[in-house]
Amino acid sequence: MIKVVVIGSGNVAQHLIKVIKNTADVQLEQAFARNIKALEHLLPQDKITSSYSKLKEADVYIIAVSDDAITNVSSQLPFSGRLVAHTSGSVGMDETDSKNRRGVFYPLQTFSKNKDVDFKLVPLCLETENAEDYILLEKLAKCLSDNVYTINSQQRQALHVAAVFVSNFVNSLYVTGNAICNENNIPFEILKPLIQETAHKVLTIKPQDAQTGPAIRNDKKTIEKHLAFLKDGKQKYIYQLLSESIQENAKKL
Amino acid sequence: MIKVVVIGSGNVAQHLIKVIKNTADVQLEQAFARNIKALEHLLPQDKITSSYSKLKEADVYIIAVSDDAITNVSSQLPFSGRLVAHTSGSVGMDETDSKNRRGVFYPLQTFSKNKDVDFKLVPLCLETENAEDYILLEKLAKCLSDNVYTINSQQRQALHVAAVFVSNFVNSLYVTGNAICNENNIPFEILKPLIQETAHKVLTIKPQDAQTGPAIRNDKKTIEKHLAFLKDGKQKYIYQLLSESIQENAKKL
Repeated sequence: MIKVVVIGSGNVAQHLIKVIKNTADVQLEQAFARNIKALEHLLPQDKITSSYSKLKEADVYIIAVSDDAITNVSSQLPFSGRLVAHTSGSVGMDETDSKNRRGVFYPLQTFSKNKDVDFKLVPLCLETENAEDYILLEKLAKCLSDNVYTINSQQRQALHVAAVFVSNFVNSLYVTGNAICNENNIPFEILKPLIQETAHKVLTIKPQDAQTGPAIRNDKKTIEKHLAFLKDGKQKYIYQLLSESIQENAKKL
Repeated sequence: MIKVVVIGSGNVAQHLIKVIKNTADVQLEQAFARNIKALEHLLPQDKITSSYSKLKEADVYIIAVSDDAITNVSSQLPFSGRLVAHTSGSVGMDETDSKNRRGVFYPLQTFSKNKDVDFKLVPLCLETENAEDYILLEKLAKCLSDNVYTINSQQRQALHVAAVFVSNFVNSLYVTGNAICNENNIPFEILKPLIQETAHKVLTIKPQDAQTGPAIRNDKKTIEKHLAFLKDGKQKYIYQLLSESIQENAKKL
């Protein structure tokens, strides 16, 4: 049985708490929240603390707080020599306090408050200072997910940037698509099969081989029509820049 | 039984031919290809012609050729007064020759050569000059798909632009994510669950409510780190522009 304490009460912390609660061989010893109310819907009160001095002993402490708070939280822990891993994609392993054995436990997924996620599919990216700690962290990770990867701090940085492109920026394009539909009395529903198929295609085809549309065909007439249609300056700019990007990527092949 | 002739041999034409072949109540009378070899894997030779003068009689002629060729193809048809619909998102209904009864039969999906699509889920956007023709075109469309919409030429233009954002541009971001992975010896596999979940979220959550990441949190430290990480000028530019777009969209709510 691996005993875990989760520190934090945001999206990632809550998804972790939920999955650990329901996993055999892993015990959620306790969760830490500055405001214990944030976790009361998930855990009984005696499992939640807002006081560092009351943190219980565990095999692994997972710090799932905002990037800016990780270093500070790691310094506040009133013990040393224990395995403490943070969940951030962009914070180096060495940014946590060296008094504890350091690690990273980065779940590469987009978590929203009101949408459950099949945690078995979430890639978990692991890194530790010590080889023995890797064995323990990997054992924990494999209880929770079928996709466990060894990723060092430099790779994790790259991965986080790539994730911003394929998730956050992709979603921003869905927002734009939705806005264009709204302005023209078109139900956004009509775009959903296209959105799903576009994501689904790259499961089996390389993204560069899946590229379609006016830019890859260098269909200048359609591109001109679209630019004339777009009245919003930022949308026009995005259209131009991403069309150029598609054409440059095609040349690299 | 609705008799259909498909004119064209590209991705859209081939997907249409495949689905019509397998649909009760619709008969693929013939297909036209400049080079009949392009369709020989789908149809027996006597169902394919490369000569306009040999086109058979049908209830609906679907012109599924590149946008630039639609007007010319519609003029070459050696008959008049029949229902002729094109499949383009960006060509107006009035750009086909007025000697025939004009319509549009626009499937809003991304079609790739080697990837089958469940046609029942493909939104079909219809428009006709005459009300009676709409009834016929809708009957045909409903045999092929469960998602049939009435979309006029102006809306179709908007929809095509929106589709470029949520599909072609989204795929270009997958290409960038893949490139960043390759440069850092990270398997692209690791991003696939995130890509799927990002697309899946907007089935149930509005895109603007699903937005996550450093830009929406205005996490300047992470944004700076990411910009410092990106060496490719175009990637850096895309990062800045889409981050700004996310922040501006958030203000509009």
